[in-house]
Amino acid sequence: TLETRRGACGTSLITPAGRLYVRNNLPPPDVAIVANPDAWTVAVEGVRQPRTLSVGELKSLGIETVAAVLQCSGNGRGYFPSKPSGTKWQVGAAGCVIWSGVPVRQVVAALGGLAEGARFITGTGGEQLPAGVDPKSVVVERSVPLKELDTALLAWEMNGEPVPHAHGGPLRLVVPGYSGVNNIKYVKRLAFTPVETDARIQSTGYRMTPPGTKGDPSFPAVWEMDVKSWVNGPAPENGPVKAGWVQIHGVAMGGTRALRRVDVSVDGGQTWHEARFVGPDLGRFAWRQFVLPMRLEPGEYMVTSRAQDTRFNWQEEVTPDNGGGFLNSGWRAHAIPLVVA
Amino acid sequence: TLETRRGACGTSLITPAGRLYVRNNLPPPDVAIVANPDAWTVAVEGVRQPRTLSVGELKSLGIETVAAVLQCSGNGRGYFPSKPSGTKWQVGAAGCVIWSGVPVRQVVAALGGLAEGARFITGTGGEQLPAGVDPKSVVVERSVPLKELDTALLAWEMNGEPVPHAHGGPLRLVVPGYSGVNNIKYVKRLAFTPVETDARIQSTGYRMTPPGTKGDPSFPAVWEMDVKSWVNGPAPENGPVKAGWVQIHGVAMGGTRALRRVDVSVDGGQTWHEARFVGPDLGRFAWRQFVLPMRLEPGEYMVTSRAQDTRFNWQEEVTPDNGGGFLNSGWRAHAIPLVVA
Repeated sequence: TLETRRGACGTSLITPAGRLYVRNNLPPPDVAIVANPDAWTVAVEGVRQPRTLSVGELKSLGIETVAAVLQCSGNGRGYFPSKPSGTKWQVGAAGCVIWSGVPVRQVVAALGGLAEGARFITGTGGEQLPAGVDPKSVVVERSVPLKELDTALLAWEMNGEPVPHAHGGPLRLVVPGYSGVNNIKYVKRLAFTPVETDARIQSTGYRMTPPGTKGDPSFPAVWEMDVKSWVNGPAPENGPVKAGWVQIHGVAMGGTRALRRVDVSVDGGQTWHEARFVGPDLGRFAWRQFVLPMRLEPGEYMVTSRAQDTRFNWQEEVTPDNGGGFLNSGWRAHAIPLVVA
Repeated sequence: TLETRRGACGTSLITPAGRLYVRNNLPPPDVAIVANPDAWTVAVEGVRQPRTLSVGELKSLGIETVAAVLQCSGNGRGYFPSKPSGTKWQVGAAGCVIWSGVPVRQVVAALGGLAEGARFITGTGGEQLPAGVDPKSVVVERSVPLKELDTALLAWEMNGEPVPHAHGGPLRLVVPGYSGVNNIKYVKRLAFTPVETDARIQSTGYRMTPPGTKGDPSFPAVWEMDVKSWVNGPAPENGPVKAGWVQIHGVAMGGTRALRRVDVSVDGGQTWHEARFVGPDLGRFAWRQFVLPMRLEPGEYMVTSRAQDTRFNWQEEVTPDNGGGFLNSGWRAHAIPLVVA
């Protein structure tokens, strides 16, 4: 695992591959798989004419490009008071990247349409499974609702170059608006299934449970991300700033919806000031960057932000603890101190 | 100089730093200047309160983010029949990047406004000048019209990280819509001047002259870029493609204006088909990527594209030769062969 420092997230929207967090649930396949990306194959099942397609063949079926936040399901886990097990991510297990690939719906159309009864899109990662254990207990295999057929991609490109191995190349299943784990790296199998996979990572893992409770399929799966924002700068790691004009900046995302506004507070949430979005709008799945210039006297401040989506949903003040420490978006926990000298 | 291969330009909009062309008019300053970017300084002149500002100070004055095509003035020179001297660029001396920095107009405002008589923005690069030559004959110093105050930036960030040394870090003057040479790397001085600089790179260099004619200030300066597009794939370097559906894709830019449409031809410009823009619109200074799916029989094709801006200006069919081989945007010269097997 590799986290992006808060102060390293700038204001130019894109997270370059080398600064994007890395998190794997299994050791990745050999890096040799990206030497000839077009030769990688994916088996497509649950369609009328199931087939195995190479990336080269996928490239002839269609091209779409989408900017999307990629955020680990456990980003913000480090801010939960119950200290759930798992990596104690703060804000750095997230980035915004531009994917290019073929829309999954165009792959389905090319293979004769969906088979009867399909209700989920199930992706399987190409990792080698360790010997001597039940494959279902370790395989990286996730199901998401079929409605995501409208926006899901099989992506071979990220930020203007072939998807790097560390980020799932040669081919990644991208489900815009869904947390990291649902975006299957080195995808080897794409199935349209009547039920969710019974792989442990889906059936008991990544479920929204009360603290201390083991997951099972009766609890909601960790799928869509919530409206969320945080301040990136001035970052505490860079020390005190000079009195006078200070440019407070950060990122805000709507999960699956566009954003309406972002407010900033420098007094821990007592008073709020509307910030300005900066830079181009990359679409509803991307984050927007915001800036609020404030003239600050010497002193100590507590800086945070809260975003609102186009359906007027505000970012939560406090996200309730959950067993896995997932999807923490509470603005109070994401506040950072600022010293003005 | 370092050119991006045509087939290496994908469909995800951004050109990552490592794939962006590099072209310098002088050897760059030592790479140590990017070790502590905030310490770099720029002298601002031609304002009521002239001052030298560090990048750290600039960061407190304002933040703006803009996506823009960066294109060498000589991109396409290799397609001029008169073979002008200079690098024989084809399409690879161009990219699209996202810059972040402070608007030049906010720097001017912070320094009391413009001095009397200012008509040009003049930027000077921080390269060390060779000894024993007239500085004016080598200095990288360019003037652009004052109207660009509305959009020019002093940028410290590119594509989500500090501007790399090869691309002008720690600080680059970005004049969106203007060709590469006007975007001064390692900018050390920013002056608002009543006249254009008499540096050779401005007075006789980068002028639109008839072939074989030496430049002088009576000829138009190489400033704004024109409406232009080209097809990137399938690239001839990747060999024949299979008969059936082929995704023809490329990039289109409006120079300083947004785009209205792009057409593609597979018969060298006899018949045209409107292509579809893909991915988010990053604004009028960025390029847009386009795709046209076509079902092609085996045979030999000649593929090209033509773009139209929002004022209904079409990309030129043929750009007339000029002395320096600048600003070639002719769609006929940019056509590429495609073999369908």
